[in-house]
Amino acid sequence: MSSASIFDSAIHGHLWAPSELRERLGDRGRIAGWLEVLAALARAQAEHGVIPADAADAIASTLDASALDLDAIARATQASGHSTAGLIEVCRGQLPERAREFFYYGATVQDVTDTWSSIVVRDLAVAVARELRALEGRLLELAEAHRATVMLGRTHAQPGAPTTLGLKLAVWLAEVRRHVERLIAVRERVAVAQLAGAVGTSASLGTAAPAVRRRFAELLGLAAPEAPWLTARDRVIEFACTCALVTGTLAKAGNEVKQLQRPEIGELTERNPAGTVGSITMPHKRNPEGSEQLGTLARVVRACASAALEGAVHEHERDGTAWKTEWWWLPECCMATAAAVRLATTVIEHLDVDVERMRANIDAMRGYVMSETVMLALAERTGKHIAHEAVYAAAMDGQERGLDFRAAIAPTAERLGLDAGELDRLLAPELVVPAAAAGVDEATASVRARRAGDPPWLTANGPDRAP
Amino acid sequence: MSSASIFDSAIHGHLWAPSELRERLGDRGRIAGWLEVLAALARAQAEHGVIPADAADAIASTLDASALDLDAIARATQASGHSTAGLIEVCRGQLPERAREFFYYGATVQDVTDTWSSIVVRDLAVAVARELRALEGRLLELAEAHRATVMLGRTHAQPGAPTTLGLKLAVWLAEVRRHVERLIAVRERVAVAQLAGAVGTSASLGTAAPAVRRRFAELLGLAAPEAPWLTARDRVIEFACTCALVTGTLAKAGNEVKQLQRPEIGELTERNPAGTVGSITMPHKRNPEGSEQLGTLARVVRACASAALEGAVHEHERDGTAWKTEWWWLPECCMATAAAVRLATTVIEHLDVDVERMRANIDAMRGYVMSETVMLALAERTGKHIAHEAVYAAAMDGQERGLDFRAAIAPTAERLGLDAGELDRLLAPELVVPAAAAGVDEATASVRARRAGDPPWLTANGPDRAP
Amino acid sequence: MSSASIFDSAIHGHLWAPSELRERLGDRGRIAGWLEVLAALARAQAEHGVIPADAADAIASTLDASALDLDAIARATQASGHSTAGLIEVCRGQLPERAREFFYYGATVQDVTDTWSSIVVRDLAVAVARELRALEGRLLELAEAHRATVMLGRTHAQPGAPTTLGLKLAVWLAEVRRHVERLIAVRERVAVAQLAGAVGTSASLGTAAPAVRRRFAELLGLAAPEAPWLTARDRVIEFACTCALVTGTLAKAGNEVKQLQRPEIGELTERNPAGTVGSITMPHKRNPEGSEQLGTLARVVRACASAALEGAVHEHERDGTAWKTEWWWLPECCMATAAAVRLATTVIEHLDVDVERMRANIDAMRGYVMSETVMLALAERTGKHIAHEAVYAAAMDGQERGLDFRAAIAPTAERLGLDAGELDRLLAPELVVPAAAAGVDEATASVRARRAGDPPWLTANGPDRAP
Amino acid sequence: MSSASIFDSAIHGHLWAPSELRERLGDRGRIAGWLEVLAALARAQAEHGVIPADAADAIASTLDASALDLDAIARATQASGHSTAGLIEVCRGQLPERAREFFYYGATVQDVTDTWSSIVVRDLAVAVARELRALEGRLLELAEAHRATVMLGRTHAQPGAPTTLGLKLAVWLAEVRRHVERLIAVRERVAVAQLAGAVGTSASLGTAAPAVRRRFAELLGLAAPEAPWLTARDRVIEFACTCALVTGTLAKAGNEVKQLQRPEIGELTERNPAGTVGSITMPHKRNPEGSEQLGTLARVVRACASAALEGAVHEHERDGTAWKTEWWWLPECCMATAAAVRLATTVIEHLDVDVERMRANIDAMRGYVMSETVMLALAERTGKHIAHEAVYAAAMDGQERGLDFRAAIAPTAERLGLDAGELDRLLAPELVVPAAAAGVDEATASVRARRAGDPPWLTANGPDRAP
Repeated sequence: MSSASIFDSAIHGHLWAPSELRERLGDRGRIAGWLEVLAALARAQAEHGVIPADAADAIASTLDASALDLDAIARATQASGHSTAGLIEVCRGQLPERAREFFYYGATVQDVTDTWSSIVVRDLAVAVARELRALEGRLLELAEAHRATVMLGRTHAQPGAPTTLGLKLAVWLAEVRRHVERLIAVRERVAVAQLAGAVGTSASLGTAAPAVRRRFAELLGLAAPEAPWLTARDRVIEFACTCALVTGTLAKAGNEVKQLQRPEIGELTERNPAGTVGSITMPHKRNPEGSEQLGTLARVVRACASAALEGAVHEHERDGTAWKTEWWWLPECCMATAAAVRLATTVIEHLDVDVERMRANIDAMRGYVMSETVMLALAERTGKHIAHEAVYAAAMDGQERGLDFRAAIAPTAERLGLDAGELDRLLAPELVVPAAAAGVDEATASVRARRAGDPPWLTANGPDRAP
Repeated sequence: MSSASIFDSAIHGHLWAPSELRERLGDRGRIAGWLEVLAALARAQAEHGVIPADAADAIASTLDASALDLDAIARATQASGHSTAGLIEVCRGQLPERAREFFYYGATVQDVTDTWSSIVVRDLAVAVARELRALEGRLLELAEAHRATVMLGRTHAQPGAPTTLGLKLAVWLAEVRRHVERLIAVRERVAVAQLAGAVGTSASLGTAAPAVRRRFAELLGLAAPEAPWLTARDRVIEFACTCALVTGTLAKAGNEVKQLQRPEIGELTERNPAGTVGSITMPHKRNPEGSEQLGTLARVVRACASAALEGAVHEHERDGTAWKTEWWWLPECCMATAAAVRLATTVIEHLDVDVERMRANIDAMRGYVMSETVMLALAERTGKHIAHEAVYAAAMDGQERGLDFRAAIAPTAERLGLDAGELDRLLAPELVVPAAAAGVDEATASVRARRAGDPPWLTANGPDRAP
Repeated sequence: MSSASIFDSAIHGHLWAPSELRERLGDRGRIAGWLEVLAALARAQAEHGVIPADAADAIASTLDASALDLDAIARATQASGHSTAGLIEVCRGQLPERAREFFYYGATVQDVTDTWSSIVVRDLAVAVARELRALEGRLLELAEAHRATVMLGRTHAQPGAPTTLGLKLAVWLAEVRRHVERLIAVRERVAVAQLAGAVGTSASLGTAAPAVRRRFAELLGLAAPEAPWLTARDRVIEFACTCALVTGTLAKAGNEVKQLQRPEIGELTERNPAGTVGSITMPHKRNPEGSEQLGTLARVVRACASAALEGAVHEHERDGTAWKTEWWWLPECCMATAAAVRLATTVIEHLDVDVERMRANIDAMRGYVMSETVMLALAERTGKHIAHEAVYAAAMDGQERGLDFRAAIAPTAERLGLDAGELDRLLAPELVVPAAAAGVDEATASVRARRAGDPPWLTANGPDRAP
Repeated sequence: MSSASIFDSAIHGHLWAPSELRERLGDRGRIAGWLEVLAALARAQAEHGVIPADAADAIASTLDASALDLDAIARATQASGHSTAGLIEVCRGQLPERAREFFYYGATVQDVTDTWSSIVVRDLAVAVARELRALEGRLLELAEAHRATVMLGRTHAQPGAPTTLGLKLAVWLAEVRRHVERLIAVRERVAVAQLAGAVGTSASLGTAAPAVRRRFAELLGLAAPEAPWLTARDRVIEFACTCALVTGTLAKAGNEVKQLQRPEIGELTERNPAGTVGSITMPHKRNPEGSEQLGTLARVVRACASAALEGAVHEHERDGTAWKTEWWWLPECCMATAAAVRLATTVIEHLDVDVERMRANIDAMRGYVMSETVMLALAERTGKHIAHEAVYAAAMDGQERGLDFRAAIAPTAERLGLDAGELDRLLAPELVVPAAAAGVDEATASVRARRAGDPPWLTANGPDRAP
């Protein structure tokens, strides 16, 4: 059967999803996850005498998702019109007789699918948090390395006053840190099992329900929920919103690279591997493809978050319309987010910074970007707003007449008692460095301190640059 | 490689996409479509002397999407970092030497992908319009059959006044007709080729460009555009919005069935095939699964439309972020829409109507739903607003005291000079039939008249490749 | 000047915004807030020698938003084309000469508007958290009062198995508790000042910047940010998403009331004040208007959240397109959320529960809703899936033939060795009470425990200005 | 009462809504519109004997929205909890006794509000179409004036090949033309009255219903609908989507100006009126504020369109949740769209084009942007893909080594037999002019031809009340 979603394209999918995640979320991976949940359910039930122990053993040891006949499951699914009846039928056929009737016992579909979703979302929160933390490490280094690298600050896409690259990166850094902290909270909140039965009462498990539920959750490394959440989807929705926040930041960084990579600006460049083709019609092209794809992935995740938010309104004890929408957005949201975090790491790891061009771009503004500094110096003599009016008038006139800012402002400066030497001093872009660098230092110090308090699961395993 | 989008699930995908559409939009189908476009391009170029005729012949006859090595294409795509360079490399390897260099000649990626999108979208507009038109035919029959089938009209989910099932269906019918008319316009508008070259100038084709473009379009049954639309995505976005409108109507119908299928109401029922399992925990369940899935699909399409609309803001002559987002939403939008139309047809085709229950539900309201009729009769005696106040007071009091409406209103009626026989007459729900049936007749007459003017491509059954 | 947004309607606005919030977010309220921020700025600057102390005093004491000439501000705003230049001009005219030039000194527009937004959002997080906590208190009482009130659990809008009203409310309760906890985190995160200057360097404040910023923040009961956030909007976006989560839950509750208020169901009723008119055409109508409005407000907030999320992608050091979109969604999001929380409180406070009807609706299902219980009893004799098949067959056949469930299942039960007395016992809806009530107890215990740990600002009633 | 939506700000609202539209959509304007509808209803009813003629006369002549006591209406609205009962009460008090009871007779709220919405939306479609058509006229002139103005085509924000400004404008032009055509269709479709009564049957009007409805519609310059559309909102939703399409195009144009106004590029500049302040901190700033605001307005409209699309799913015969959401988005969508069209006209009217800078920016690319032309020339000698590889290698190497393109490609050109003179010729950006200008001519010819067929209401200047 062909795959038509771009996420599943053999040719283009690598830009949309890490392949290991695609495996995990695909039919076999999903079934493997469900079987793991069902094995834990059987074990918990056996421990509490709900089903025989040997049935639980057989359920755990017999079923192998990689060997199941997907076509048979598909046929049985369509014949029953039920989302898991087909799987149950095929699995029963594989199980020894003693276990057959205790497979998927006393549980509703959502008990299995929601619990699996919690595991997936929990793991993704962990993976994304770890990758963001590694990215944070890189941003810490970069922000510090460039704490005094002067460049244009731009507002409304127009040169404003100088800033430093380090401060720009410190803004990203602080945002990434907040996302890490959000993900710590989200991971905690989403990692809950579901074992609620048909309508939430767990009636099928009788008085053993609470104990079975706790053990079931524990076996899977999850918490037991304080209440059934068949129709309370706030946790997964919060996860989707957090993904949208995370990918939003990455898209912002991507767009910044894309805009500053314009050769007319040329301050940042996404370094492409050798052999990369930018265009089949224009052979010279070197495109910020990774940076742009960050924008694309963020849009996808945002659309998922919108759909997720609508799903807060579940009707009664199960709402097929709202619930099944999750079957769509949850995997796609996970894939796009994971792909974005990985891609952002690559883009930032391979970012070329052209420090000289940054300085040259400031110089090309012919002094105007120092208008605030001059205004503030004049303000000491004449007041802020009067100084603004004076500098404004001089700057507008100077730009009209093609003067540089020094020439434009000199008469005003002289009139207001600012001598030429002082004026020259005020026109040096490096004047902003102490303030900007202090801003960098404040941000990095804050991030380092909070980073030091990260929980072990976040700092252990996986890539994690030392602070 | 596994497929992780629900659209591509071997087990669940049948509820999300017609399989033939999935084939068409999947890797091989998409490549087959692109090759068809490239063959037309080569042929048009050959006819205008841009490339040799035998090269065009070879391009058209040699390449077979079903035989291409997808893995090789995938590897070459990743190595080049370019969306089609890998395909070009593999295809060149298959072509005879004389044709090799004339494959994908003078065209940019979007020339091929956009033209293919136009074909897909055009064909989908046709297919959806045809299926909607067939559904319209069924709704015409049903609306007429039930033009006098009295049932509760409900506002704010509360019984209002009686209406007829025919009139409810006539509202859907008129909406479907408007969608058909929209799709006629959309089909016309979207069916345009793209042949603009790298930045829209068609410079690569020189002076032959307009003629080649026209012939290229003609060969594919498309119109030539009035201008390049590399960055003017309004047509596909309009298509997405239209899909959202169409699936919105179908979701409305689905929700109506779902709500009226509640056994507490029991007026409409989605007839399930024998063997359908509603629940693995509650064996008695019969769920309106199709109706609910219509709601789900509409949400997906709406999310696609949101993402599509954002794409109107393209930057410069190609914007990777906006453009690549289409690679995501366009196939998913098409699949969900096609699935929804097909599913709606099934749901409506297998809809059980319980006429007696409709009447019983009215009777269970104990006369209150005739409050407007009585109020209007009293209005003739006392004025509308005074009558409203009187009936309101009596109805509130009657409901409080557990009276039926006749008992509640009788003193007021008597006081205002409405005799008992007249009151009885006014309490008959059938009183609304003439007005409601007239409404049905107006709607069906309008739809029949407009339907008669439908273009041949819509009424015929064959494929729609000739304009 | 007329007001055209529904939020500002004199006639309808009360359903969309609490009036005190409208005042606060309107022109005068917003200016009052900005002036308060500017007064704090002046005081912090004076304390650090940036401006004279008497200027700061004059700024704090002279300007009175309620007395400013809005028309003059409007004219000056339009003349300058700048969002705050008009306000500055008018305020300067009011200030004594010694203070005039130190008003709005060394700050950029966003320093003031962002800091004000933080205060507004922080206060709203507090207000919403408090109202939700009060609602939580009410839900605790209701859930406990109805822990054993048996009612139908419904899935896919079809009767499933019985549950209790208490358990349904416990699900809402747990969701509200999680929202309270989210708001605690959000309040902490959003309550940060902005004092970053033109492009984020705070260069205008020189070496005093960090100290001025800290004092400025402290005076306003805010934290100083770890980095400028002119272009890092994640905090307000997270706030918007949290609002969407909160209103989503309230809309769910509203929809539940709306659906269960149908007279065909009649289990819950939104009690309207006397004199409430449901319809001007159908005098008997009593509509769940509050419940429906909860759904409407949630849609508005969701649209705001979508727009908010897009704003994560800011360009460079200020992005007018993304930034100004906040000027739209932030007030509307705040108003709709505040209105929803208040309305939900009213709806739930005035909710009529018809316990007898709940039981009658179960009985009307003629035993079928106990199919799971019977199936599980049979499962002990024959296995779960075999029992499912047997009960499924009997239930389908019984419903087809119009039998009640006891009659339908009796032959099967007998064949499988379930005696009649046991069957009768299994058909009692009250069987689910122990499990459901245990679920309620688990939820309320969890909520009570966490509630006991709420911070003082949340449990107190006074204003929340001190950190 | 204060106004808190940015649309209603006395200070900032002028950027968000044309003031005349704000008046029309505000409380008094809306009531005036409703009264106009109610007067037409009364007149139609009088002509068909439903109410006395003198009552109709009094209704038409007595009520004056500008004199109604809004506070009294507000109080009565809140007391009744009904959206129009308060208005009815106050109006009844103003009417002579003979008319009092025939005011708002036999109509439901939606009959009036929907009919008014149709008029508003129809008028807005007309106004927007007219302004777009005027903009189209300006774009025609500009595209033609700049048909040969060579500038960089940019893809992925990187210089690609040259194009002309005229062609860029021709793309906008064609898009605007399609919007005009969409608006012609939308205007036709939306201009329908509603007169359906409580649940759609028009039962309150009895057998006179169809005739009254037709006359009612005719009096208002509307068509009678083929069916009640109380719950069929596709027309207004389509309008919202069309607004999103229109504002999307305008936002695209705005972003293009914003990006090209960067002084590093400097090709287009939004000319600000004298006295415009770009920044209160950086006096030299000249911002593309109008261009940015176009982006903001498009986001607002897109959010409205999302909310609109969700409203397609109405429940039963009236759905308060979906319906009331229109009360929010419809006015805001109208205002933002109208503001955007007006603003875009201003921006484009005051657009400075720096033709020399366009050429200089090409030259600064040192020949690389002619890589396609050279590649195609080499392709004639060696084949397209081989030529691509050769030019790619030379271009990558040349850029690495800091060579200009001529130096980089010369050895390859020589090796493949392209002589130096021919190479020089191929490097001239003007080579693209014939193709680009032909593209402009094709577009303008198409637009001119279609424009000539525009209906009179679109080309005339008067009000559009006659159908």
